[in-house]
Amino acid sequence: MNTVAELKELPKDQKVPYEAVVVLRKSSIRKARNDSEFLMVEFGDKSGVFHYICFGNSSHYQLFLNAVEGTIYRVQGSTDYYQNRFSPSITHIEKVHESEVQRYLDRLVECAPIPVKELWTELQGFIAKINHAPLKETVNSALSELEKEFKTIPGAISMHHAYRSGLMEHTVRMCRACVSLLPLYDEVDPDLALAGVILHDLGKALEYTGDLATTKSRLGHLHGHVVLGYRQTRRAAIKAGLSEDLLDRLEHIILSHQGELEWGAAVKAATPEAVFVSMVDNLDAKMGMVQYALRSTPENQDFSDYVAGLGAPLLVRKPQYPA
Amino acid sequence: MNTVAELKELPKDQKVPYEAVVVLRKSSIRKARNDSEFLMVEFGDKSGVFHYICFGNSSHYQLFLNAVEGTIYRVQGSTDYYQNRFSPSITHIEKVHESEVQRYLDRLVECAPIPVKELWTELQGFIAKINHAPLKETVNSALSELEKEFKTIPGAISMHHAYRSGLMEHTVRMCRACVSLLPLYDEVDPDLALAGVILHDLGKALEYTGDLATTKSRLGHLHGHVVLGYRQTRRAAIKAGLSEDLLDRLEHIILSHQGELEWGAAVKAATPEAVFVSMVDNLDAKMGMVQYALRSTPENQDFSDYVAGLGAPLLVRKPQYPA
Amino acid sequence: MNTVAELKELPKDQKVPYEAVVVLRKSSIRKARNDSEFLMVEFGDKSGVFHYICFGNSSHYQLFLNAVEGTIYRVQGSTDYYQNRFSPSITHIEKVHESEVQRYLDRLVECAPIPVKELWTELQGFIAKINHAPLKETVNSALSELEKEFKTIPGAISMHHAYRSGLMEHTVRMCRACVSLLPLYDEVDPDLALAGVILHDLGKALEYTGDLATTKSRLGHLHGHVVLGYRQTRRAAIKAGLSEDLLDRLEHIILSHQGELEWGAAVKAATPEAVFVSMVDNLDAKMGMVQYALRSTPENQDFSDYVAGLGAPLLVRKPQYPA
Amino acid sequence: MNTVAELKELPKDQKVPYEAVVVLRKSSIRKARNDSEFLMVEFGDKSGVFHYICFGNSSHYQLFLNAVEGTIYRVQGSTDYYQNRFSPSITHIEKVHESEVQRYLDRLVECAPIPVKELWTELQGFIAKINHAPLKETVNSALSELEKEFKTIPGAISMHHAYRSGLMEHTVRMCRACVSLLPLYDEVDPDLALAGVILHDLGKALEYTGDLATTKSRLGHLHGHVVLGYRQTRRAAIKAGLSEDLLDRLEHIILSHQGELEWGAAVKAATPEAVFVSMVDNLDAKMGMVQYALRSTPENQDFSDYVAGLGAPLLVRKPQYPA
Amino acid sequence: MNTVAELKELPKDQKVPYEAVVVLRKSSIRKARNDSEFLMVEFGDKSGVFHYICFGNSSHYQLFLNAVEGTIYRVQGSTDYYQNRFSPSITHIEKVHESEVQRYLDRLVECAPIPVKELWTELQGFIAKINHAPLKETVNSALSELEKEFKTIPGAISMHHAYRSGLMEHTVRMCRACVSLLPLYDEVDPDLALAGVILHDLGKALEYTGDLATTKSRLGHLHGHVVLGYRQTRRAAIKAGLSEDLLDRLEHIILSHQGELEWGAAVKAATPEAVFVSMVDNLDAKMGMVQYALRSTPENQDFSDYVAGLGAPLLVRKPQYPA
Amino acid sequence: MNTVAELKELPKDQKVPYEAVVVLRKSSIRKARNDSEFLMVEFGDKSGVFHYICFGNSSHYQLFLNAVEGTIYRVQGSTDYYQNRFSPSITHIEKVHESEVQRYLDRLVECAPIPVKELWTELQGFIAKINHAPLKETVNSALSELEKEFKTIPGAISMHHAYRSGLMEHTVRMCRACVSLLPLYDEVDPDLALAGVILHDLGKALEYTGDLATTKSRLGHLHGHVVLGYRQTRRAAIKAGLSEDLLDRLEHIILSHQGELEWGAAVKAATPEAVFVSMVDNLDAKMGMVQYALRSTPENQDFSDYVAGLGAPLLVRKPQYPA
Repeated sequence: MNTVAELKELPKDQKVPYEAVVVLRKSSIRKARNDSEFLMVEFGDKSGVFHYICFGNSSHYQLFLNAVEGTIYRVQGSTDYYQNRFSPSITHIEKVHESEVQRYLDRLVECAPIPVKELWTELQGFIAKINHAPLKETVNSALSELEKEFKTIPGAISMHHAYRSGLMEHTVRMCRACVSLLPLYDEVDPDLALAGVILHDLGKALEYTGDLATTKSRLGHLHGHVVLGYRQTRRAAIKAGLSEDLLDRLEHIILSHQGELEWGAAVKAATPEAVFVSMVDNLDAKMGMVQYALRSTPENQDFSDYVAGLGAPLLVRKPQYPA
Repeated sequence: MNTVAELKELPKDQKVPYEAVVVLRKSSIRKARNDSEFLMVEFGDKSGVFHYICFGNSSHYQLFLNAVEGTIYRVQGSTDYYQNRFSPSITHIEKVHESEVQRYLDRLVECAPIPVKELWTELQGFIAKINHAPLKETVNSALSELEKEFKTIPGAISMHHAYRSGLMEHTVRMCRACVSLLPLYDEVDPDLALAGVILHDLGKALEYTGDLATTKSRLGHLHGHVVLGYRQTRRAAIKAGLSEDLLDRLEHIILSHQGELEWGAAVKAATPEAVFVSMVDNLDAKMGMVQYALRSTPENQDFSDYVAGLGAPLLVRKPQYPA
Repeated sequence: MNTVAELKELPKDQKVPYEAVVVLRKSSIRKARNDSEFLMVEFGDKSGVFHYICFGNSSHYQLFLNAVEGTIYRVQGSTDYYQNRFSPSITHIEKVHESEVQRYLDRLVECAPIPVKELWTELQGFIAKINHAPLKETVNSALSELEKEFKTIPGAISMHHAYRSGLMEHTVRMCRACVSLLPLYDEVDPDLALAGVILHDLGKALEYTGDLATTKSRLGHLHGHVVLGYRQTRRAAIKAGLSEDLLDRLEHIILSHQGELEWGAAVKAATPEAVFVSMVDNLDAKMGMVQYALRSTPENQDFSDYVAGLGAPLLVRKPQYPA
Repeated sequence: MNTVAELKELPKDQKVPYEAVVVLRKSSIRKARNDSEFLMVEFGDKSGVFHYICFGNSSHYQLFLNAVEGTIYRVQGSTDYYQNRFSPSITHIEKVHESEVQRYLDRLVECAPIPVKELWTELQGFIAKINHAPLKETVNSALSELEKEFKTIPGAISMHHAYRSGLMEHTVRMCRACVSLLPLYDEVDPDLALAGVILHDLGKALEYTGDLATTKSRLGHLHGHVVLGYRQTRRAAIKAGLSEDLLDRLEHIILSHQGELEWGAAVKAATPEAVFVSMVDNLDAKMGMVQYALRSTPENQDFSDYVAGLGAPLLVRKPQYPA
Repeated sequence: MNTVAELKELPKDQKVPYEAVVVLRKSSIRKARNDSEFLMVEFGDKSGVFHYICFGNSSHYQLFLNAVEGTIYRVQGSTDYYQNRFSPSITHIEKVHESEVQRYLDRLVECAPIPVKELWTELQGFIAKINHAPLKETVNSALSELEKEFKTIPGAISMHHAYRSGLMEHTVRMCRACVSLLPLYDEVDPDLALAGVILHDLGKALEYTGDLATTKSRLGHLHGHVVLGYRQTRRAAIKAGLSEDLLDRLEHIILSHQGELEWGAAVKAATPEAVFVSMVDNLDAKMGMVQYALRSTPENQDFSDYVAGLGAPLLVRKPQYPA
Repeated sequence: MNTVAELKELPKDQKVPYEAVVVLRKSSIRKARNDSEFLMVEFGDKSGVFHYICFGNSSHYQLFLNAVEGTIYRVQGSTDYYQNRFSPSITHIEKVHESEVQRYLDRLVECAPIPVKELWTELQGFIAKINHAPLKETVNSALSELEKEFKTIPGAISMHHAYRSGLMEHTVRMCRACVSLLPLYDEVDPDLALAGVILHDLGKALEYTGDLATTKSRLGHLHGHVVLGYRQTRRAAIKAGLSEDLLDRLEHIILSHQGELEWGAAVKAATPEAVFVSMVDNLDAKMGMVQYALRSTPENQDFSDYVAGLGAPLLVRKPQYPA
């Protein structure tokens, strides 16, 4: 079985049989010059993408017409080129069975470096640290409704933690930082801070859509993750009977965590907890970019490529302590 | 009866008896050097303000301690000066009766140039133009809960329509512009646009507080009028059974109407109606500044003072058409 | 006859005879390594472009050397490829006769959705609404000198109304909005506002050059459309005997209509008419982007591509009203 | 005879007879509470200002009603205070005769450190260096129409060269720098550069108004000095028969000399001469702030006050070279 | 003994004998109208300031001429007013003895809430955690040269930790946060991060000057604290024999810690340690503003005054947990 | 011998023997799919670049593994294409001897239009004009340590004077302007200004690295040229015994010459010399862009391409003076 990158390295002038496991990322209807419609289907894995053009008279047409973006397929066919772009034929195609998905995930998309299960377990431990029952219940309830999405969604489409399960990794790392820092900042209420950290970006589970091929949802465009997270939290809190004072403050953390209005905050942070959460968010986001640059830079380079979020390339060599 | 400005023009070196009707704008507890507490009370009318210091042994102490900001009082006493500031004594003080308030309003605060009643009636006419019943019901229900505040609140604390009932004036004027422009922009859905115009700033009825002395409320600081308007609209719409598609769009108009993220929009306008409403808002806000500069500039000046929102002083003379 | 896009879809490995009608967009002299000069000629239609390299010994050399950018040609030859780029041979070439141009316009360039003639007639109607004779005469005279350019020039090179006759479409639409709004804003002088709307962007008829291939003219670079429009208006007004007071104000509308200095305004709007015209300009420009996104987005997409001027992709589906 | 500052230092509790020569800076009609009108007249010299209130029944009323801002008066009366502000009585007032103005100028307003006559003579020398006759004629003609204003107007209302004749000083200094630098920059046409330097800010002679009390004129507000300078130059050039190519370029220097659009440039500099003039303008403006800080900082300070245009206080001590 | 605020509350119309301990904040030479020089001396304590004018014939003249800003004096005299400003006479003045200074400090200036000694001891503990000897030696040596200034200087002149010993408080708090967070961010070298935190703002000990009356020093204006801290660290490191690799990185932390170039960073953070330190700096600076707002807001207010560094007033009430 | 551009124009379908002199610009280790490492080597001259892939079993592998970026090679082989990109074989490769480098320089990289030797001689003349011996010694010493780099480094990687020896050209041109302007600005100390001009960008000799293939050095990333120039100057000045006052000021010129903090200045210019040097830098940088646009624009164009640093395309035609 080959990765897409490997297929593209096969000799261009021969039609080589291949087999690959790929995600269907996008399927869109296009109109040919003669007005007949065709489907432009994009397949890919972590190493690259290719397009497959499927006309109405193809045996695969119905399959692709109804295909859900993000579905994983095993495809077979021969390599080919059309107008200088890699355009393999597809002779056989089948959905990869649910039970096998986990096995291929790593080759299909970039994932958080810590397994999802471990992250989830650790997160439960942090929730357990929230003492006030209605607050804990609010967090549990808001989260459980979106558990599936929350577990897979990236931390961002570009910028920091921009890979599968990146949001959960970022949230857990922020919980760790929060718990470490709370003893130093007496003026910050621990329960509110921890609940705020866990829920601050939950709206992204509604803003983004698609399991293996993330894009912005309709509500993501129209409302944005800040308001969606506020709405999800509000509903859960009302159900959990959270007091008005606490709810105002918890919502405020979510509404203000982006820091500056031009970065998408609805208001500026105006409680000790909101200032604290937005600063911890900023710290961990930036460190996430550092971590990613460190692990994705080839060994023979001293500096990573330019990291937009840092405004600089990162020196990736470890400091040398003289023996 | 004298205005505050008139009292300040009386001879400084005599204690002149006076009577005035004023709003209690602010009352705050302060600590004297000897650790005894006293109250610093601010009174004012449209023409100016003065401060009254009330110590614990004063017969008025309890009255001021429990006074509600924005209450109207009739006060009597003598003019006096303390450390060069106007500090009249107060020998008699009584609340102005509810029934008399209307009579004094004009001398106490600046008001919209159109009477509240007329504005409200005109607004009902615009609501009646909304055809889709659940949308009309949403607008009615969201508005009726905040009718009292909506009728008095200014359009902004500074900037445009910054006077009593300014928000309602601005809303009605936007309705007029909206109705005039709709036939020209087919791509804009009339019902959604009109509902959006009426509700776009409704959150200010929750963001601001105080009838005659407007400040930001706790929720104003923590959530901001954009999110508060969204929340008020959402609750009303769910009660009214508005469809999800329409609600998404109506909420989007409110969330995006401020235009730019740095001006407080939660998202950028991304539907024809939202782009339209935010542009009509901008137009009427700027014209509101023009109108205010025209009516508040002394007759002998060619230009108004610098208008911050326009970035220029305004030429207030009418164009001269040769006979 | 084929569009350029169609020619590019013909089999690459055969030389296929073709005939096409195309605009000569650009012809520039280049120097080959051996110091002999050649011409690099760019042809195109609405669907795409290709380049033709013409050496000094070619029979077409003189023709292309003297060719005017924006001329329409009928070309014949065979498809071919050079260094992987589409480089058809040209065996026969002839100018399309003036009388046939209209027939091909639609396939050569994108045009405003309303026919030029209708726009022009409607515009005359708006001019007729200007009561003050010298003002009407100013508008007529300024416009008539540039009628030909005004009728074809786009509203902008990128951004809003960026297609043939887009400027005239934008101007007419602004007239409509202006006339609809004037009854609502008493403080705005109708004659000045209407004249200002019609002339506000007239300078673009001098800033842009080329009928079918628009670029910035020398004066466009050196003076900009704001000053060019001011100059054109000033000359016409002096001829028409417009009074100094009215001319100052009319010129001010043109000089300030861009809104902000960094967007190219020479001064900030400082009369009621100037504030009004710049706001109506902003409204119609944004709505023009909405209209364009609506008509150019493929039917199967919910959202248009990202629209730079809106800062968002546009939701193109109509609202669904439950039956 | 006393300066205003000296008058303010006389004992407050006595009415001391005084005589002073002052500029009438501003006279505005105000309405008293009893609806009778009065005049608020501002007098001042270089050392300070005071206000004189003149009621309708005063013998000076007609005089002040018709007074021209910027007129110089000799006033006599007694010192007095009203509401803690210096409010002297005026028993005698007379216009200072034209022939005496020069004598008092220095104590009335801050002036350029070089005498006007010398600056003007030097400027004529620079004009003489322009070789191309129509260009020289353009400069002479544009300048001569505004000679009186040009000789007295400040370089700016705040910022650099903000004192009487500051514009002429700045222009002459730029000429010197221009002539010194031209031999180093071959690509800059000397005639155009010199003409551009001399005319670049000429529009300020129309933008500002008032001889001894400078404010923005009506045209200053509506058109701004960039466009006014362009218009003045254009008229002179057409009269002088300047060729179109040269006029385009000369106008471009004026339109672009402010450097950035947000600083008021109509277009960005796009010829060698325009880039050069805008850079020399920037250099001399900044050095003008340095010169002013050096001569206005008290001797015992190491640093001047914060200079807004430099973004820093200036170290005013000379470098110390060890003997 | 009275505070300055108390002196100002004494009856204005009597000359009351007083005694006060105050800091001489500023003494500057001024010239009177008659060209004789006098001294304008500013005295103050935490509660307020007053000015004393001392002419050449005064017995105190020599004393004030040679006085060092920031010296503490015990003064006696009588209250008085001149031109409505508090201008007490001084009959007796003497320097407060070194040994007494500590006793008066609290009433003279605002101090960090933690005693200097405790902060210093805690800081020594953090230095001890640095394992690499040359790095520890660098920190010790750089710090010991400026120990006196470092212990007293504020964290900033305005903004965060803007009170005596505020810099040391901020540094110690950052050390605590650093040590708490290091276990979570493996990619950050602990020794470098800790050394960077301790030295990051050390340059302020050279940028600011004056013990009890802080202003910017000459070098503060000319070089700024970032470069001064770099220079101090570099000298200490070379003496301590720190390796080039580690020195480059330590210097980089100091040069980049301000975050953005426009906030004064010489370069953008480009090592894991530099990103980390700048983020921890940001976190603790913002929390310092929160702490200050909490302890300086009167008890009867829900919100603090507007905090410029947060862009909002802070809600100072603690969250209410229902019993 | 062929340029790279010429090689790329040879027929694609034949393997043509070639010989070329090229710079090795970059050599990086990559990993193939089968985990074996290979080298990706980039060669180029002024006309273009190509890549050569060298596997471990190649006879050139060791040579390329140890190759220094910026070395000049004579290569022989045959033209070839791989995946449509020009990938010639290399059969013979040898270093070009030191003595021949000068001969090829012009075809390998773009150079300053004035020969290095002349620039250097002229610079020595300017140094000789510095009167104060320790200042002259500081300049000489700081420069001599970096003479080799200073002579070749570009003025910037992009933007102005971005070609070999561009920094020296820019420095010499600034010296000329400085010497021409000094007589006009008495307040500027000539010795400091000239020393400041010569050293202002010296740090770039440490910020950039590589003779024929310039990139940012490690220190360039971590410290930036402003701080590196400061450090180089400081060391030289201490050795030369420059007084503290003069050193503070010389360092300040270097630290502030970038003008604005966001452009990399460590502090804002706050001495007459620093303001002057930063303005002359700005002037010559902009004129350098003008000069480059003039000499690199093809003769048949009126305007250059868009020049980012000017924000406009430049009109490159000379003004036409009527005969």
